[in-house]
Amino acid sequence: MTLNPLINHFIHAAFVAVFAAGICSDARADDALASWNEGPAKKAIQEFVAAVTNKNGTDYVEPAERIAVFDHDGTLWVEYPMYTQVLFAFDRVKKLAPQHPEWKTTQPFQALLEGDMKTFGASGMQGVMQVMMATHSGMTSAEFEMTVSDWLATAKQPKFDRLYRDSIYQPQLELLAYLRANGFKTFIVSGGGIAFMRPITEENYGIPPEQVVGSSVVSEFQVKDGKPVLVRTPKLAFNNDKAGKPVGIYEHIGRRPILAFGNSDSDMQMIEYTMAGEGRRLGLFVHHTDADREYAYDRDSPVGTLDKALDQAKANNWIIVSMKNDWNQIFPED
Amino acid sequence: MTLNPLINHFIHAAFVAVFAAGICSDARADDALASWNEGPAKKAIQEFVAAVTNKNGTDYVEPAERIAVFDHDGTLWVEYPMYTQVLFAFDRVKKLAPQHPEWKTTQPFQALLEGDMKTFGASGMQGVMQVMMATHSGMTSAEFEMTVSDWLATAKQPKFDRLYRDSIYQPQLELLAYLRANGFKTFIVSGGGIAFMRPITEENYGIPPEQVVGSSVVSEFQVKDGKPVLVRTPKLAFNNDKAGKPVGIYEHIGRRPILAFGNSDSDMQMIEYTMAGEGRRLGLFVHHTDADREYAYDRDSPVGTLDKALDQAKANNWIIVSMKNDWNQIFPED
Repeated sequence: MTLNPLINHFIHAAFVAVFAAGICSDARADDALASWNEGPAKKAIQEFVAAVTNKNGTDYVEPAERIAVFDHDGTLWVEYPMYTQVLFAFDRVKKLAPQHPEWKTTQPFQALLEGDMKTFGASGMQGVMQVMMATHSGMTSAEFEMTVSDWLATAKQPKFDRLYRDSIYQPQLELLAYLRANGFKTFIVSGGGIAFMRPITEENYGIPPEQVVGSSVVSEFQVKDGKPVLVRTPKLAFNNDKAGKPVGIYEHIGRRPILAFGNSDSDMQMIEYTMAGEGRRLGLFVHHTDADREYAYDRDSPVGTLDKALDQAKANNWIIVSMKNDWNQIFPED
Repeated sequence: MTLNPLINHFIHAAFVAVFAAGICSDARADDALASWNEGPAKKAIQEFVAAVTNKNGTDYVEPAERIAVFDHDGTLWVEYPMYTQVLFAFDRVKKLAPQHPEWKTTQPFQALLEGDMKTFGASGMQGVMQVMMATHSGMTSAEFEMTVSDWLATAKQPKFDRLYRDSIYQPQLELLAYLRANGFKTFIVSGGGIAFMRPITEENYGIPPEQVVGSSVVSEFQVKDGKPVLVRTPKLAFNNDKAGKPVGIYEHIGRRPILAFGNSDSDMQMIEYTMAGEGRRLGLFVHHTDADREYAYDRDSPVGTLDKALDQAKANNWIIVSMKNDWNQIFPED
């Protein structure tokens, strides 16, 4: 026996090791978006991130300018058949009813308390807003935060038998982490209430409260029992929806994002604003196409209507992400 | 000769090296606040930071909750004898006058254009607001940012022969860096316009636009020549001053700060709100006591009035930082 076979053996072993390391490394890179199926959406994301982080490329973007914004309802967590925050408000009406005997004979509260959703539905957006205001004001900021946290700790989404707060999309958690690993700062920009989201965004998505943009009521600084507090009033301060989203981004972030992800026509202005900046940009919509694993709804749904955006996607280079085809897993493992 | 002297020599050398390293390390730690004189203010800051970052101490605060807020005018840069943003607005009136022939005969614009500051002064806060609105609206967000950047690139503070944008306080730059080195997230919370500050806060203070909270006008999303833009309107959206500051903090940051630094009675509510949180907190005011190196003003000054806060400081454990006594350097080296 000469040394050759041994040397060959070592060379082969070294080659296998290097090759395996190469595969591992590729596998790891893919793993960052493991719940995304190979396809045009995943490819668009990966190519975009590669382009804006390549220092020698023409599309390079300084880390400070790598702002990514995500809608919340229907984009990061389940919104169907009804927005979680609205269900919270309904529950609060039931809980607070003993302190509001007048609700027994006042619409739309009476309808809600009697479970008469047809009458409640007839009260329209105005009725919903009345309920939202009545349940989201009249307490301090700290009291409201506690109420929201307590509710989210136990309220369950019936179809998935998961807490609402856990009905979040695994592929989006991966995308958020992937973007941050590539120097992005991630923000939520939602039509939902800013104070309703903040108690969970850090733990759920790794997004701290100061990176959450949303709708708000007017709050007042007061000194109560010698203690300075903020009291929430029943007056809308800012509606961070539709054309309000780019405004919220301007006021809160002060930079134009380079990536925006939504799921409904309400996100069109945010995505238009994002895409209109100079340099390379990416705009995406979740399309809820998966009746089995989640829900299927778009053009005719009153919740999360996705209609015009579908028609205009191609012309605007917006990426439509099909939940059914592009995501191999919907929710995180328990 | 035995080995003993040599060993002793090495032991001595090692001791000196260790001791010197110790000194160096202390000196480096002190250097973080080199422009702060030894005294109660510097000591309070250092003890506070040591306490909230000591994992084994009772005052420990998680990094995510280490929020520090700084007023801008008079706290981070010169505000006397007139707020820089107001001087910018005055300059804009002169610049824009040819496009507004009506200003020649309309107060308070006429007085400003004629240099009749007595008449302008008589127009009071309402007059100032009229000028602010006329000069801060009617353009896109990008146009306004460009105008501000251009003005700040050349406008000079006459007393110091420095650009206004460079009339910033060296001890505060050191404090901001020291806090960030200790895991704090630093924010500006100012009565000034958010869009007026943002073009320079990153370069001046290392504070990115998304960590600037301020007053704002109502902006509107519009599509102009096929391009989505934000247009600034002459309507106040939010006045981030006095009792507005804690509200701005709640809406923008969503956490109660643990350190707040101001310089006038307008900062009292922000500092009260900060100090009222649980656990250890620090509230500070710059007291402008240095007529030679900067300015001396407090109770009777219409700009940066510091009156009630001086009276209430002791009872509330607020730290009054005397510019003259506590700062050995005012501005950065050129």
